[in-house]
Amino acid sequence: MSEDKSQEDNRNVVYIGSQKPAMSYVLATLSCLNNSPKVYLKARGAAISHAVDVAQITINRFAQGVKVAGITLDTEELQSQEGGMRNVSTILIELEGSKKGKGED
Amino acid sequence: MSEDKSQEDNRNVVYIGSQKPAMSYVLATLSCLNNSPKVYLKARGAAISHAVDVAQITINRFAQGVKVAGITLDTEELQSQEGGMRNVSTILIELEGSKKGKGED
Repeated sequence: MSEDKSQEDNRNVVYIGSQKPAMSYVLATLSCLNNSPKVYLKARGAAISHAVDVAQITINRFAQGVKVAGITLDTEELQSQEGGMRNVSTILIELEGSKKGKGED
Repeated sequence: MSEDKSQEDNRNVVYIGSQKPAMSYVLATLSCLNNSPKVYLKARGAAISHAVDVAQITINRFAQGVKVAGITLDTEELQSQEGGMRNVSTILIELEGSKKGKGED
């Protein structure tokens, strides 16, 4: 929906589901942050709470210089198994790393 | 934690849990928006997804002039039943109503 969003490509987007433990998404996020100053966490439905956990664990425990630069809420239409359409909320959390190298100041 | 947050009092805060259906929180939110231009939706843990649903349903279906003015993520420490402490993520969604009366333009 938001065409102007600067998600250059999918390499810096971490799609968060509910199956895997938060820590595996935290690892994926940290690995993305090593390659890109901006990382987007994307989740929908019940996984939204999980995405918030991943953001908070990443920032508070592993990457203190990283900040939440923006959060976007949206709604997607999904085809339900019964054939109708249903609405699902989505979240996009933008994490921004510090430009400084690790261990400075 | 954030003392400077301008949540003047609790009258414009809707605490969102996971038990009740989203629609009852939507009603509470609409009723708050009638009395106050700003309403805060607050949730923690698994109810975070529910809070996002409530915000999206409120905006898309019932109060088109209302916007998400800000979203804050945080972590709270809770006493677990086994005696230890555990961290729980929280979300605070700030909804801002339009100043215009209903039915105008």
